[in-house]
Amino acid sequence: MAWTIDLNCDMGESFGVWVMGHDLDVLPHVTSANIACGFHAGDPATMRKTVEAALRHGVALGAHPGLPDLMGFGRRSIPVRPDEAYDMVVVQVGALAAVAASQNARLHHVKAHGALYNMASRQRELAMAIAQAVHDVDNTLVLYALAGSAQVDAAREVGLAVAQEVFADRSYQDDGSLTPRTQPGAMIEDVDASVRQVLRMVTEGKIRSQQGTDISVQADTLCIHGDQPGAVEFAKVIRQALAEADIGVGTVDA
Amino acid sequence: MAWTIDLNCDMGESFGVWVMGHDLDVLPHVTSANIACGFHAGDPATMRKTVEAALRHGVALGAHPGLPDLMGFGRRSIPVRPDEAYDMVVVQVGALAAVAASQNARLHHVKAHGALYNMASRQRELAMAIAQAVHDVDNTLVLYALAGSAQVDAAREVGLAVAQEVFADRSYQDDGSLTPRTQPGAMIEDVDASVRQVLRMVTEGKIRSQQGTDISVQADTLCIHGDQPGAVEFAKVIRQALAEADIGVGTVDA
Amino acid sequence: MAWTIDLNCDMGESFGVWVMGHDLDVLPHVTSANIACGFHAGDPATMRKTVEAALRHGVALGAHPGLPDLMGFGRRSIPVRPDEAYDMVVVQVGALAAVAASQNARLHHVKAHGALYNMASRQRELAMAIAQAVHDVDNTLVLYALAGSAQVDAAREVGLAVAQEVFADRSYQDDGSLTPRTQPGAMIEDVDASVRQVLRMVTEGKIRSQQGTDISVQADTLCIHGDQPGAVEFAKVIRQALAEADIGVGTVDA
Amino acid sequence: MAWTIDLNCDMGESFGVWVMGHDLDVLPHVTSANIACGFHAGDPATMRKTVEAALRHGVALGAHPGLPDLMGFGRRSIPVRPDEAYDMVVVQVGALAAVAASQNARLHHVKAHGALYNMASRQRELAMAIAQAVHDVDNTLVLYALAGSAQVDAAREVGLAVAQEVFADRSYQDDGSLTPRTQPGAMIEDVDASVRQVLRMVTEGKIRSQQGTDISVQADTLCIHGDQPGAVEFAKVIRQALAEADIGVGTVDA
Repeated sequence: MAWTIDLNCDMGESFGVWVMGHDLDVLPHVTSANIACGFHAGDPATMRKTVEAALRHGVALGAHPGLPDLMGFGRRSIPVRPDEAYDMVVVQVGALAAVAASQNARLHHVKAHGALYNMASRQRELAMAIAQAVHDVDNTLVLYALAGSAQVDAAREVGLAVAQEVFADRSYQDDGSLTPRTQPGAMIEDVDASVRQVLRMVTEGKIRSQQGTDISVQADTLCIHGDQPGAVEFAKVIRQALAEADIGVGTVDA
Repeated sequence: MAWTIDLNCDMGESFGVWVMGHDLDVLPHVTSANIACGFHAGDPATMRKTVEAALRHGVALGAHPGLPDLMGFGRRSIPVRPDEAYDMVVVQVGALAAVAASQNARLHHVKAHGALYNMASRQRELAMAIAQAVHDVDNTLVLYALAGSAQVDAAREVGLAVAQEVFADRSYQDDGSLTPRTQPGAMIEDVDASVRQVLRMVTEGKIRSQQGTDISVQADTLCIHGDQPGAVEFAKVIRQALAEADIGVGTVDA
Repeated sequence: MAWTIDLNCDMGESFGVWVMGHDLDVLPHVTSANIACGFHAGDPATMRKTVEAALRHGVALGAHPGLPDLMGFGRRSIPVRPDEAYDMVVVQVGALAAVAASQNARLHHVKAHGALYNMASRQRELAMAIAQAVHDVDNTLVLYALAGSAQVDAAREVGLAVAQEVFADRSYQDDGSLTPRTQPGAMIEDVDASVRQVLRMVTEGKIRSQQGTDISVQADTLCIHGDQPGAVEFAKVIRQALAEADIGVGTVDA
Repeated sequence: MAWTIDLNCDMGESFGVWVMGHDLDVLPHVTSANIACGFHAGDPATMRKTVEAALRHGVALGAHPGLPDLMGFGRRSIPVRPDEAYDMVVVQVGALAAVAASQNARLHHVKAHGALYNMASRQRELAMAIAQAVHDVDNTLVLYALAGSAQVDAAREVGLAVAQEVFADRSYQDDGSLTPRTQPGAMIEDVDASVRQVLRMVTEGKIRSQQGTDISVQADTLCIHGDQPGAVEFAKVIRQALAEADIGVGTVDA
């Protein structure tokens, strides 16, 4: 096959009795799991069960560290200094790494969650702190980062392998950023259009921005939103489309 | 020297703006630090700073996992099943191990905190779960456990090295358990009596119970209570007494 | 009508993005809502929305205070002293009372949640502390309490009105306590048997224990479990059966 | 006396075993206590004890609601929507009002804490949400607000009495805002200069800005920082100075 892409999904975002997402339904269709580490979601038992389930399906294990905000699910842009972000990422990656180790497995990657991901995509110092934290815990980990963002640069600067992440259901701006959800046209609701966007990103390395310009993008890993209705159905559709286009599916090497 | 004992102290039990203990004052006088991991105390920044300080003083790093109860400081006996305790210990040890790794260091030991320590000292299944968790994260870690307790047996059963912990300021019962704090005579407030108790435990392996019987005890590590007034003073006194009795001070080998 | 019974349901037990129960579906069928207050579940927005919804349906507002344990959903029997329970109940009742006040409404009752409810049903001192707390915040509130339990006695002793709560889907022991869920036969899964148990409790004040003895019970309010599948269906069935038996449905007067 | 000023202090900001401030030492010297409500600090027992202590000293009770951020002590500017702020303030004011009610007392005022106070001083919509929340819980409460800020306007708009707060140890900008702590000259460390600033604010309604301009200010209440070394000493000094200047000390009427 000429091309390969990873399919990643956020998981383990339940907390105590509260359930989020459809992890067991999505796992057969993805290749990487980003598992919550207790700050924005995920309690110790959920972390263990999610790692168990991912291992059963041969899905690569990733830590999914977030801001310390259960009530806001890590989606509120709590201002944190780079040193605070560094510390938060270290302990969360370590917690999930231990869950993996207790099952004779190892982490493969790290992807920041929610507001931490978004802030670090734009703020170089925050991105550097996160990348350095991942590196300092385990320099073989791959950082999953918004394609073309400050996180990609930071990962390279500290010497981490990086997987550039793209989205099927989000439109892009001329500068390569995602259209904010608060703006019209941010979400691509037509499944065929989503699929076409993905295929073109993979095979041509291009995406048509909302403004109508073709911009370059490197599509290493595609985000599947596991907490949305239709997630499993979309995962099946995109895998079928990738197979028909002779695009392989698999994890990103470190 | 004929004998050696380790001096351990709970540390890193601040949280956010709130300060607990006198870690920097105590560190010069102890050989092992048990560092809180975020469940009963200890935020990510405190964990990092405490590890940094312990390393500066050449003090062995230990994880100090507790029950998830900031409001109760891990002292409330929240009933947890063995599988819950296992999961809680895994993530906490992992979190602190990552903080150590980010500073090019490794953990040396684990000591459960507060109610978790007390419950596991008596309940075999809980003790087994904790020991197994420590083993499964890193089987080179030493488990610090109440001398003669169910935790000691559990550590041996899962194949962990164990350090039996004794107390200078607590009286013992005939069965080797500590006199509950709610009973008269639980605390030994006379410093000389405390020192004598320690010296005899180390050199003779004996302790006089509150009932007046001599019982056997293995004193591998002595607990210094860093959050109490006079902690530093007592640490100095006990080190002087140990030196005069030709008892070495040092960490317990794995 | 010769008899009347209240139908109560725990509500507002979502937290942040996590949803629990089917409050909007259950509300048309009950007469009292016990609304979580933030300790075991329920964030400020959920509290407001749940009060709004209950008021729209003319359902009586109750506070549903629990133990401070989001991860355990208030179901872990955290040992708390009576003074601690008093303080926890005061602040939680006050929080929900303010939400009601902000909507020009008032609380009608208080029902303790989960482990707090269970512990207080058996422990007189804890029951007294909870009843006193409710009384001291607002002595016009009705305490919802397990029929025949220490909470009923405590409410009377401090001068609170009390509503004795019964269960349709739980079997009872000779001493009037609920069969623990860990024992066989604890749950009554046959809907007809549940309905018959309720009708007899209301009209005869009797219930057949698991041991086969008829015991007396005062059935002021029936608990509808809103978080269980079939909750809405059961609520409809029981209301139909109550109507056919000429049993009125309505709140308990203070 | 020609003039009167209230002296307020944040209190009850301990949490569990962790102690903050010197409440009992400060209470004899102030007239209003702003008591933490559990979101940024303050557990139920601390809330009760702080209310008890304030009542013993005849100090007016105020709620001190903050952002839900124990780890950051409510000092991180978590972005919250006005409706979220409304809900957070309602439940916190209600919680403390219930603690007061349980001691046969009533709240006198509300003062937002930390980042919530600062954000609401500048953002009109947030200020309106907070003022409306206070009003909707109890429209007799006084809102303590940064002198000249958006919070003052909001209080008036919703019909709340307002007490304009001034600072002895902070310098002011030409627009009446406080010099940010990150800028040089933000803190006035000379006690005499602090005292002079207060006396002039009270007697002339003027303050010299850092830029050297005289600006108008209404000084209804002065903030005493109880968590700083020298707080008690400063409180004594300022009371002495106020007495010598024939300025009365007392709470602000609703």
